[in-house]
Amino acid sequence: MNKIESAKNPLVKLTKRLQKRKQREKEGLFVVEGYHLVEEVLQHDVEVQEIITEDHKNIPANHAGARVSLVTEQVMKEMSSTETPQGILAVCRLPKTQEVIVQKKGSYLFIDGVQDPGNLGTMIRTADAVGVSAVILGEGTVDPYNDKVVRATQGSLFHLPVIKGDLEEWIKACRNKNIPVFGTCVTQGTTHTAIEAQDGFALIVGNEGAGVQEKWLEQSDQNIYVPIYGNAESLNVSVATGILLYHLKLSH
Amino acid sequence: MNKIESAKNPLVKLTKRLQKRKQREKEGLFVVEGYHLVEEVLQHDVEVQEIITEDHKNIPANHAGARVSLVTEQVMKEMSSTETPQGILAVCRLPKTQEVIVQKKGSYLFIDGVQDPGNLGTMIRTADAVGVSAVILGEGTVDPYNDKVVRATQGSLFHLPVIKGDLEEWIKACRNKNIPVFGTCVTQGTTHTAIEAQDGFALIVGNEGAGVQEKWLEQSDQNIYVPIYGNAESLNVSVATGILLYHLKLSH
Repeated sequence: MNKIESAKNPLVKLTKRLQKRKQREKEGLFVVEGYHLVEEVLQHDVEVQEIITEDHKNIPANHAGARVSLVTEQVMKEMSSTETPQGILAVCRLPKTQEVIVQKKGSYLFIDGVQDPGNLGTMIRTADAVGVSAVILGEGTVDPYNDKVVRATQGSLFHLPVIKGDLEEWIKACRNKNIPVFGTCVTQGTTHTAIEAQDGFALIVGNEGAGVQEKWLEQSDQNIYVPIYGNAESLNVSVATGILLYHLKLSH
Repeated sequence: MNKIESAKNPLVKLTKRLQKRKQREKEGLFVVEGYHLVEEVLQHDVEVQEIITEDHKNIPANHAGARVSLVTEQVMKEMSSTETPQGILAVCRLPKTQEVIVQKKGSYLFIDGVQDPGNLGTMIRTADAVGVSAVILGEGTVDPYNDKVVRATQGSLFHLPVIKGDLEEWIKACRNKNIPVFGTCVTQGTTHTAIEAQDGFALIVGNEGAGVQEKWLEQSDQNIYVPIYGNAESLNVSVATGILLYHLKLSH
Protein backbone atom coordinates (compact mmCIF):
# COMPACT_ATOMS: atom_id res chain seq x y z
CA MET A 1 0.00 0.00 0.00
CA ASN A 2 1.24 3.43 -0.93
CA LYS A 3 2.08 5.69 2.00
CA ILE A 4 1.41 9.40 1.67
CA GLU A 5 4.36 11.27 3.12
CA SER A 6 3.76 14.75 1.76
CA ALA A 7 1.25 17.30 3.00
CA LYS A 8 1.06 18.49 -0.61
CA ASN A 9 -0.64 15.29 -1.71
CA PRO A 10 -4.03 16.17 -3.32
CA LEU A 11 -5.96 13.92 -0.90
CA VAL A 12 -4.36 15.64 2.08
CA LYS A 13 -5.15 19.05 0.62
CA LEU A 14 -8.74 18.01 -0.11
CA THR A 15 -9.26 16.76 3.44
CA LYS A 16 -7.99 20.03 4.87
CA ARG A 17 -10.18 22.08 2.52
CA LEU A 18 -13.24 20.16 3.74
CA GLN A 19 -12.90 21.85 7.14
CA LYS A 20 -14.69 24.78 5.46
CA ARG A 21 -18.45 24.64 4.88
CA LYS A 22 -18.26 26.16 1.39
CA GLN A 23 -15.74 23.56 0.28
CA ARG A 24 -17.88 20.76 1.70
CA GLU A 25 -20.83 22.00 -0.30
CA LYS A 26 -18.76 22.49 -3.45
CA GLU A 27 -17.18 19.04 -3.29
CA GLY A 28 -20.25 17.31 -1.84
CA LEU A 29 -17.99 15.70 0.76
CA PHE A 30 -17.31 15.83 4.50
CA VAL A 31 -14.83 14.30 6.92
CA VAL A 32 -15.27 12.24 10.07
CA GLU A 33 -12.37 11.67 12.40
CA GLY A 34 -11.59 8.97 14.94
CA TYR A 35 -12.16 5.23 15.04
CA HIS A 36 -15.66 5.36 16.51
CA LEU A 37 -17.01 7.81 13.93
CA VAL A 38 -15.40 5.95 11.01
CA GLU A 39 -17.11 2.82 12.33
CA GLU A 40 -20.42 4.72 12.52
CA VAL A 41 -20.34 5.97 8.91
CA LEU A 42 -19.41 2.49 7.69
CA GLN A 43 -22.35 1.01 9.60
CA HIS A 44 -24.90 3.52 8.42
CA ASP A 45 -26.16 4.78 5.13
CA VAL A 46 -23.18 6.98 4.33
CA GLU A 47 -21.02 6.59 1.23
CA VAL A 48 -17.44 6.38 2.43
CA GLN A 49 -15.04 7.45 -0.32
CA GLU A 50 -11.74 7.10 1.39
CA ILE A 51 -10.36 5.94 4.71
CA ILE A 52 -7.08 7.56 5.69
CA THR A 53 -5.06 6.06 8.49
CA GLU A 54 -1.63 5.95 10.03
CA ASP A 55 -1.92 2.22 10.60
CA HIS A 56 -3.89 -0.06 8.29
CA LYS A 57 -4.35 -2.59 11.10
CA ASN A 58 -6.46 -0.01 12.88
CA ILE A 59 -9.44 0.03 10.48
CA PRO A 60 -12.96 -1.08 11.40
CA ALA A 61 -13.67 -4.58 10.09
CA ASN A 62 -16.62 -3.58 7.90
CA HIS A 63 -14.70 -1.30 5.52
CA ALA A 64 -15.12 -3.42 2.41
CA GLY A 65 -15.33 -1.25 -0.68
CA ALA A 66 -13.77 1.88 0.77
CA ARG A 67 -10.41 2.96 -0.56
CA VAL A 68 -7.72 3.03 2.12
CA SER A 69 -4.70 5.33 2.19
CA LEU A 70 -1.83 5.19 4.59
CA VAL A 71 -0.23 8.40 5.81
CA THR A 72 2.64 9.27 8.10
CA GLU A 73 1.99 10.57 11.61
CA GLN A 74 3.16 14.00 10.48
CA VAL A 75 0.71 14.12 7.55
CA MET A 76 -2.13 12.93 9.82
CA LYS A 77 -1.35 15.82 12.15
CA GLU A 78 -1.60 18.20 9.20
CA MET A 79 -5.00 16.84 8.19
CA SER A 80 -6.51 16.51 11.62
CA SER A 81 -8.78 19.14 13.09
CA THR A 82 -8.01 17.98 16.62
CA GLU A 83 -4.96 18.56 18.77
CA THR A 84 -4.49 14.89 19.46
CA PRO A 85 -5.39 13.04 16.24
CA GLN A 86 -6.73 9.52 16.65
CA GLY A 87 -4.87 8.36 13.56
CA ILE A 88 -7.86 7.64 11.33
CA LEU A 89 -10.38 9.63 9.34
CA ALA A 90 -12.79 9.08 6.49
CA VAL A 91 -13.86 11.25 3.57
CA CYS A 92 -17.58 10.69 2.94
CA ARG A 93 -20.19 11.86 0.49
CA LEU A 94 -22.73 14.33 1.92
CA PRO A 95 -26.00 12.40 2.12
CA LYS A 96 -28.96 13.44 -0.01
CA THR A 97 -31.58 15.31 1.99
CA GLN A 98 -33.86 12.69 3.49
CA GLU A 99 -37.55 13.16 2.92
CA VAL A 100 -39.36 13.47 6.22
CA ILE A 101 -43.14 13.45 6.42
CA VAL A 102 -44.64 14.72 9.67
CA GLN A 103 -46.50 11.95 11.47
CA LYS A 104 -49.21 12.36 14.09
CA LYS A 105 -47.17 10.51 16.73
CA GLY A 106 -43.79 11.79 15.61
CA SER A 107 -41.59 14.06 17.67
CA TYR A 108 -39.55 16.82 16.08
CA LEU A 109 -36.80 19.13 17.24
CA PHE A 110 -36.70 22.46 15.39
CA ILE A 111 -33.43 24.37 15.84
CA ASP A 112 -33.51 28.11 15.23
CA GLY A 113 -30.04 29.52 14.75
CA VAL A 114 -27.89 27.56 17.23
CA GLN A 115 -24.33 28.72 16.54
CA ASP A 116 -22.04 26.69 18.77
CA PRO A 117 -20.96 23.41 17.12
CA GLY A 118 -20.65 21.62 20.48
CA ASN A 119 -24.19 22.64 21.41
CA LEU A 120 -25.68 21.53 18.08
CA GLY A 121 -23.84 18.21 18.18
CA THR A 122 -24.93 17.54 21.75
CA MET A 123 -28.54 18.39 20.87
CA ILE A 124 -28.52 15.92 17.95
CA ARG A 125 -27.08 13.27 20.29
CA THR A 126 -29.83 13.95 22.85
CA ALA A 127 -32.54 13.91 20.15
CA ASP A 128 -31.26 10.50 19.08
CA ALA A 129 -31.18 9.24 22.69
CA VAL A 130 -34.77 10.25 23.38
CA GLY A 131 -35.97 8.82 20.07
CA VAL A 132 -36.94 12.00 18.22
CA SER A 133 -38.21 11.40 14.64
CA ALA A 134 -36.21 14.16 12.95
CA VAL A 135 -34.15 17.27 13.69
CA ILE A 136 -34.83 20.30 11.49
CA LEU A 137 -32.16 22.99 11.26
CA GLY A 138 -33.56 26.45 10.56
CA GLU A 139 -31.70 29.28 8.88
CA GLY A 140 -28.61 30.54 10.69
CA THR A 141 -27.87 27.21 12.37
CA VAL A 142 -24.30 25.94 12.19
CA ASP A 143 -23.65 23.31 9.49
CA PRO A 144 -24.13 19.79 10.93
CA TYR A 145 -21.16 18.51 8.89
CA ASN A 146 -18.79 20.91 10.67
CA ASP A 147 -16.15 18.66 12.25
CA LYS A 148 -16.92 19.82 15.79
CA VAL A 149 -20.64 19.15 15.35
CA VAL A 150 -19.98 15.68 13.95
CA ARG A 151 -17.67 14.88 16.87
CA ALA A 152 -20.16 16.10 19.49
CA THR A 153 -22.97 13.99 17.97
CA GLN A 154 -20.82 10.89 18.68
CA GLY A 155 -22.38 9.28 15.60
CA SER A 156 -25.99 10.27 16.25
CA LEU A 157 -25.86 12.44 13.12
CA PHE A 158 -26.12 9.18 11.17
CA HIS A 159 -28.91 7.67 13.29
CA LEU A 160 -31.85 9.96 12.50
CA PRO A 161 -32.79 12.50 9.81
CA VAL A 162 -31.01 15.84 10.45
CA ILE A 163 -32.02 18.24 7.70
CA LYS A 164 -32.00 21.93 6.88
CA GLY A 165 -35.43 23.43 6.42
CA ASP A 166 -37.71 26.44 6.55
CA LEU A 167 -39.19 26.39 10.06
CA GLU A 168 -42.32 28.18 8.83
CA GLU A 169 -43.17 25.25 6.59
CA TRP A 170 -42.42 22.73 9.31
CA ILE A 171 -44.60 24.52 11.85
CA LYS A 172 -47.41 24.50 9.27
CA ALA A 173 -46.91 20.80 8.59
CA CYS A 174 -47.28 20.10 12.33
CA ARG A 175 -50.42 22.22 12.52
CA ASN A 176 -51.91 20.29 9.62
CA LYS A 177 -51.46 17.09 11.61
CA ASN A 178 -52.68 18.64 14.87
CA ILE A 179 -49.30 18.15 16.52
CA PRO A 180 -48.65 20.72 19.24
CA VAL A 181 -45.70 23.01 18.58
CA PHE A 182 -43.89 24.24 21.69
CA GLY A 183 -41.72 27.33 21.51
CA THR A 184 -39.15 28.01 24.22
CA CYS A 185 -38.59 31.37 25.80
CA VAL A 186 -36.91 32.34 29.09
CA THR A 187 -39.19 35.30 29.76
CA GLN A 188 -42.69 34.19 28.84
CA GLY A 189 -44.83 31.09 28.75
CA THR A 190 -45.52 28.11 30.97
CA THR A 191 -43.19 26.17 33.25
CA HIS A 192 -42.36 22.93 31.47
CA THR A 193 -43.57 20.79 34.37
CA ALA A 194 -47.09 22.16 33.81
CA ILE A 195 -47.11 20.41 30.42
CA GLU A 196 -47.90 16.72 30.16
CA ALA A 197 -46.01 14.25 28.04
CA GLN A 198 -47.15 14.24 24.42
CA ASP A 199 -47.72 11.49 21.90
CA GLY A 200 -46.51 13.73 19.12
CA PHE A 201 -44.92 17.17 19.36
CA ALA A 202 -42.47 19.67 17.93
CA LEU A 203 -40.11 21.64 20.15
CA ILE A 204 -38.45 24.82 18.91
CA VAL A 205 -35.18 25.83 20.56
CA GLY A 206 -33.10 28.85 19.66
CA ASN A 207 -29.86 30.72 19.40
CA GLU A 208 -27.53 30.86 22.44
CA GLY A 209 -27.91 34.60 22.90
CA ALA A 210 -31.13 35.67 21.16
CA GLY A 211 -33.26 32.59 21.80
CA VAL A 212 -36.09 31.57 19.48
CA GLN A 213 -37.15 34.30 17.06
CA GLU A 214 -40.34 36.16 17.97
CA LYS A 215 -42.04 35.11 14.74
CA TRP A 216 -41.80 31.43 15.69
CA LEU A 217 -42.96 32.11 19.25
CA GLU A 218 -46.06 33.72 17.75
CA GLN A 219 -46.73 30.71 15.53
CA SER A 220 -46.29 28.10 18.27
CA ASP A 221 -49.23 26.58 20.17
CA GLN A 222 -47.64 27.24 23.52
CA ASN A 223 -44.36 28.62 24.80
CA ILE A 224 -42.59 26.87 27.65
CA TYR A 225 -39.47 27.32 29.75
CA VAL A 226 -37.37 25.53 32.32
CA PRO A 227 -37.59 27.51 35.57
CA ILE A 228 -34.45 29.00 37.13
CA TYR A 229 -34.23 28.81 40.93
CA GLY A 230 -30.70 30.01 41.55
CA ASN A 231 -28.69 32.93 40.21
CA ALA A 232 -27.90 31.68 36.72
CA GLU A 233 -29.50 33.86 34.05
CA SER A 234 -30.32 30.91 31.87
CA LEU A 235 -29.46 27.32 31.07
CA ASN A 236 -27.14 26.21 28.31
CA VAL A 237 -29.36 25.55 25.27
CA SER A 238 -28.32 21.91 24.91
CA VAL A 239 -29.07 21.24 28.59
CA ALA A 240 -32.48 22.96 28.35
CA THR A 241 -33.22 20.94 25.19
CA GLY A 242 -32.39 17.71 27.02
CA ILE A 243 -34.65 18.56 29.96
CA LEU A 244 -37.54 19.54 27.69
CA LEU A 245 -37.26 16.64 25.24
CA TYR A 246 -37.16 14.08 28.06
CA HIS A 247 -40.04 15.80 29.82
CA LEU A 248 -42.25 15.91 26.71
CA LYS A 249 -41.47 12.31 25.83
CA LEU A 250 -41.37 10.59 29.15
CA SER A 251 -44.01 11.36 31.69
CA HIS A 252 -46.41 8.84 30.13
CA MET B 1 -3.26 56.19 32.22
CA ASN B 2 -0.29 54.20 31.07
CA LYS B 3 -0.87 52.03 28.02
CA ILE B 4 0.91 48.70 27.80
CA GLU B 5 2.21 48.26 24.28
CA SER B 6 4.62 45.42 24.73
CA ALA B 7 3.81 41.74 25.10
CA LYS B 8 6.94 41.54 27.28
CA ASN B 9 5.34 43.62 30.02
CA PRO B 10 5.32 41.60 33.28
CA LEU B 11 1.53 41.90 33.66
CA VAL B 12 1.00 40.54 30.16
CA LYS B 13 3.39 37.68 30.84
CA LEU B 14 1.68 36.90 34.16
CA THR B 15 -1.76 36.81 32.55
CA LYS B 16 -0.55 34.39 29.90
CA ARG B 17 1.13 32.17 32.50
CA LEU B 18 -2.16 31.94 34.39
CA GLN B 19 -3.62 29.86 31.53
CA LYS B 20 -1.80 26.94 33.20
CA ARG B 21 -3.22 25.31 36.32
CA LYS B 22 0.17 25.00 38.05
CA GLN B 23 0.85 28.68 37.59
CA ARG B 24 -2.60 29.60 38.91
CA GLU B 25 -1.93 27.56 42.03
CA LYS B 26 1.59 28.97 42.44
CA GLU B 27 0.48 32.59 42.05
CA GLY B 28 -2.89 32.15 43.76
CA LEU B 29 -4.51 33.96 40.84
CA PHE B 30 -6.81 33.29 37.91
CA VAL B 31 -8.16 35.21 34.93
CA VAL B 32 -11.69 35.91 33.72
CA GLU B 33 -12.27 37.28 30.26
CA GLY B 34 -15.10 39.29 28.72
CA TYR B 35 -17.31 42.10 30.00
CA HIS B 36 -19.98 39.87 31.55
CA LEU B 37 -17.53 37.78 33.60
CA VAL B 38 -15.58 40.84 34.77
CA GLU B 39 -18.91 42.27 35.93
CA GLU B 40 -19.67 38.99 37.73
CA VAL B 41 -16.39 38.88 39.68
CA LEU B 42 -16.81 42.53 40.66
CA GLN B 43 -20.33 41.82 41.92
CA HIS B 44 -19.43 38.74 43.90
CA ASP B 45 -17.02 37.86 46.63
CA VAL B 46 -13.91 37.72 44.45
CA GLU B 47 -10.86 39.89 44.99
CA VAL B 48 -10.12 41.57 41.67
CA GLN B 49 -6.46 42.56 41.44
CA GLU B 50 -6.32 44.09 38.04
CA ILE B 51 -8.64 44.93 35.19
CA ILE B 52 -6.97 44.99 31.80
CA THR B 53 -8.79 46.55 28.89
CA GLU B 54 -8.33 47.98 25.43
CA ASP B 55 -10.74 50.80 26.20
CA HIS B 56 -11.17 52.26 29.68
CA LYS B 57 -14.68 53.46 28.82
CA ASN B 58 -15.66 49.82 28.56
CA ILE B 59 -15.34 48.86 32.25
CA PRO B 60 -18.24 47.80 34.47
CA ALA B 61 -19.37 50.68 36.69
CA ASN B 62 -18.70 48.92 39.99
CA HIS B 63 -14.93 48.56 39.57
CA ALA B 64 -13.93 50.90 42.42
CA GLY B 65 -10.72 49.75 44.03
CA ALA B 66 -9.47 47.57 41.19
CA ARG B 67 -6.34 48.69 39.36
CA VAL B 68 -6.97 49.31 35.68
CA SER B 69 -4.43 48.88 32.89
CA LEU B 70 -4.87 49.86 29.28
CA VAL B 71 -3.38 47.68 26.55
CA THR B 72 -3.24 47.85 22.78
CA GLU B 73 -5.44 45.57 20.67
CA GLN B 74 -2.35 43.60 19.70
CA VAL B 75 -1.33 43.00 23.33
CA MET B 76 -4.91 41.99 24.22
CA LYS B 77 -4.77 39.41 21.43
CA GLU B 78 -1.56 38.05 22.94
CA MET B 79 -3.14 37.72 26.39
CA SER B 80 -6.51 36.39 25.34
CA SER B 81 -7.33 32.72 25.39
CA THR B 82 -10.12 33.19 22.84
CA GLU B 83 -9.93 33.71 19.09
CA THR B 84 -12.05 36.86 19.22
CA PRO B 85 -11.07 38.71 22.40
CA GLN B 86 -13.75 40.85 23.97
CA GLY B 87 -11.19 43.50 24.90
CA ILE B 88 -11.38 43.15 28.67
CA LEU B 89 -10.14 40.72 31.31
CA ALA B 90 -9.51 40.67 35.03
CA VAL B 91 -6.80 39.05 37.13
CA CYS B 92 -8.40 37.80 40.38
CA ARG B 93 -7.27 36.12 43.56
CA LEU B 94 -8.27 32.44 43.86
CA PRO B 95 -10.95 32.38 46.56
CA LYS B 96 -10.27 30.55 49.83
CA THR B 97 -12.04 27.19 49.99
CA GLN B 98 -15.52 27.87 51.31
CA GLU B 99 -16.62 25.77 54.23
CA VAL B 100 -19.71 23.80 53.32
CA ILE B 101 -21.67 21.89 55.95
CA VAL B 102 -24.09 19.28 54.63
CA GLN B 103 -27.67 20.21 55.50
CA LYS B 104 -30.62 17.85 55.67
CA LYS B 105 -32.50 19.76 52.96
CA GLY B 106 -29.44 20.67 50.92
CA SER B 107 -28.75 19.38 47.44
CA TYR B 108 -25.26 18.49 46.31
CA LEU B 109 -23.64 17.67 43.01
CA PHE B 110 -20.58 15.42 43.29
CA ILE B 111 -18.42 15.36 40.17
CA ASP B 112 -16.13 12.38 39.70
CA GLY B 113 -13.44 13.05 37.13
CA VAL B 114 -15.19 15.15 34.48
CA GLN B 115 -12.44 16.13 32.05
CA ASP B 116 -13.98 18.42 29.46
CA PRO B 117 -13.91 22.07 30.54
CA GLY B 118 -17.09 22.90 28.61
CA ASN B 119 -18.93 20.05 30.31
CA LEU B 120 -17.79 21.03 33.81
CA GLY B 121 -18.65 24.70 33.24
CA THR B 122 -22.08 23.82 31.89
CA MET B 123 -22.73 21.53 34.87
CA ILE B 124 -21.84 24.30 37.34
CA ARG B 125 -24.17 26.64 35.43
CA THR B 126 -26.99 24.09 35.62
CA ALA B 127 -26.35 23.42 39.33
CA ASP B 128 -26.67 27.16 39.93
CA ALA B 129 -29.88 27.36 37.86
CA VAL B 130 -31.57 24.55 39.77
CA GLY B 131 -30.46 25.96 43.11
CA VAL B 132 -27.98 23.28 44.23
CA SER B 133 -26.30 24.04 47.61
CA ALA B 134 -22.74 23.14 46.55
CA VAL B 135 -20.74 21.41 43.82
CA ILE B 136 -17.95 19.10 44.98
CA LEU B 137 -15.17 18.26 42.54
CA GLY B 138 -13.61 14.87 43.16
CA GLU B 139 -10.10 13.86 42.18
CA GLY B 140 -9.30 13.92 38.46
CA THR B 141 -11.84 16.63 37.67
CA VAL B 142 -10.66 19.52 35.51
CA ASP B 143 -9.71 22.69 37.43
CA PRO B 144 -12.73 25.03 37.73
CA TYR B 145 -10.48 28.07 37.20
CA ASN B 146 -9.45 26.82 33.75
CA ASP B 147 -10.48 29.63 31.37
CA LYS B 148 -12.83 27.41 29.36
CA VAL B 149 -14.60 26.20 32.50
CA VAL B 150 -15.00 29.76 33.79
CA ARG B 151 -16.44 30.86 30.42
CA ALA B 152 -18.91 27.96 30.25
CA THR B 153 -20.19 28.68 33.77
CA GLN B 154 -21.23 32.15 32.52
CA GLY B 155 -20.54 33.46 36.03
CA SER B 156 -22.24 30.68 37.99
CA LEU B 157 -18.81 29.71 39.37
CA PHE B 158 -19.17 32.77 41.62
CA HIS B 159 -22.80 32.09 42.65
CA LEU B 160 -22.46 28.93 44.72
CA PRO B 161 -19.68 27.00 46.49
CA VAL B 162 -17.64 24.97 43.98
CA ILE B 163 -14.92 23.15 45.90
CA LYS B 164 -12.46 20.31 45.50
CA GLY B 165 -12.99 17.45 47.91
CA ASP B 166 -12.68 13.78 48.73
CA LEU B 167 -15.94 12.22 47.56
CA GLU B 168 -15.63 9.47 50.18
CA GLU B 169 -15.88 12.04 52.97
CA TRP B 170 -18.75 13.82 51.28
CA ILE B 171 -20.73 10.63 50.78
CA LYS B 172 -20.20 9.88 54.49
CA ALA B 173 -21.32 13.37 55.48
CA CYS B 174 -24.56 12.84 53.52
CA ARG B 175 -25.12 9.45 55.13
CA ASN B 176 -24.71 11.03 58.56
CA LYS B 177 -27.53 13.42 57.74
CA ASN B 178 -29.68 10.72 56.13
CA ILE B 179 -29.53 12.41 52.76
CA PRO B 180 -29.91 9.92 49.91
CA VAL B 181 -26.88 9.67 47.63
CA PHE B 182 -27.66 8.78 44.01
CA GLY B 183 -24.95 7.37 41.80
CA THR B 184 -25.36 7.42 38.03
CA CYS B 185 -24.57 4.53 35.78
CA VAL B 186 -25.66 3.76 32.21
CA THR B 187 -25.76 0.00 32.68
CA GLN B 188 -27.29 -0.61 36.10
CA GLY B 189 -29.80 0.92 38.46
CA THR B 190 -33.22 2.48 38.27
CA THR B 191 -34.74 4.70 35.58
CA HIS B 192 -34.68 8.26 36.95
CA THR B 193 -38.43 8.71 36.47
CA ALA B 194 -39.01 5.94 39.06
CA ILE B 195 -37.42 8.22 41.69
CA GLU B 196 -39.47 10.95 43.33
CA ALA B 197 -38.26 14.46 43.93
CA GLN B 198 -36.18 14.78 47.09
CA ASP B 199 -36.01 17.41 49.79
CA GLY B 200 -32.30 16.84 50.15
CA PHE B 201 -30.00 14.70 47.99
CA ALA B 202 -26.57 14.21 46.53
CA LEU B 203 -26.07 13.22 42.92
CA ILE B 204 -22.78 11.72 41.73
CA VAL B 205 -21.94 12.11 38.04
CA GLY B 206 -18.79 10.88 36.39
CA ASN B 207 -16.12 11.01 33.73
CA GLU B 208 -17.14 11.30 30.05
CA GLY B 209 -15.77 7.89 29.11
CA ALA B 210 -15.52 5.84 32.29
CA GLY B 211 -18.53 7.17 34.19
CA VAL B 212 -18.71 7.16 37.99
CA GLN B 213 -16.08 4.96 39.64
CA GLU B 214 -17.32 1.59 40.90
CA LYS B 215 -16.31 2.42 44.49
CA TRP B 216 -18.73 5.35 44.61
CA LEU B 217 -21.52 3.34 42.98
CA GLU B 218 -21.09 0.82 45.79
CA GLN B 219 -21.32 3.53 48.45
CA SER B 220 -24.39 5.24 47.02
CA ASP B 221 -27.92 4.56 48.28
CA GLN B 222 -29.27 3.97 44.81
CA ASN B 223 -27.93 4.17 41.27
CA ILE B 224 -30.04 5.79 38.59
CA TYR B 225 -29.85 6.47 34.87
CA VAL B 226 -31.62 8.39 32.13
CA PRO B 227 -33.09 5.82 29.72
CA ILE B 228 -32.00 5.77 26.08
CA TYR B 229 -34.74 5.10 23.52
CA GLY B 230 -32.90 5.72 20.26
CA ASN B 231 -29.52 4.62 18.94
CA ALA B 232 -27.24 6.91 20.93
CA GLU B 233 -24.98 4.96 23.27
CA SER B 234 -25.27 7.54 26.01
CA LEU B 235 -26.08 11.14 26.76
CA ASN B 236 -23.53 13.91 27.14
CA VAL B 237 -22.72 14.10 30.87
CA SER B 238 -23.79 17.73 31.24
CA VAL B 239 -27.15 17.01 29.57
CA ALA B 240 -27.72 13.93 31.78
CA THR B 241 -26.80 16.00 34.84
CA GLY B 242 -29.35 18.66 33.86
CA ILE B 243 -32.13 16.10 33.40
CA LEU B 244 -31.35 14.39 36.72
CA LEU B 245 -30.91 17.56 38.81
CA TYR B 246 -34.18 19.03 37.55
CA HIS B 247 -35.96 15.74 38.09
CA LEU B 248 -34.70 15.29 41.67
CA LYS B 249 -35.51 18.90 42.56
CA LEU B 250 -38.72 19.54 40.75
CA SER B 251 -41.41 16.95 40.83
CA HIS B 252 -42.71 18.24 44.19
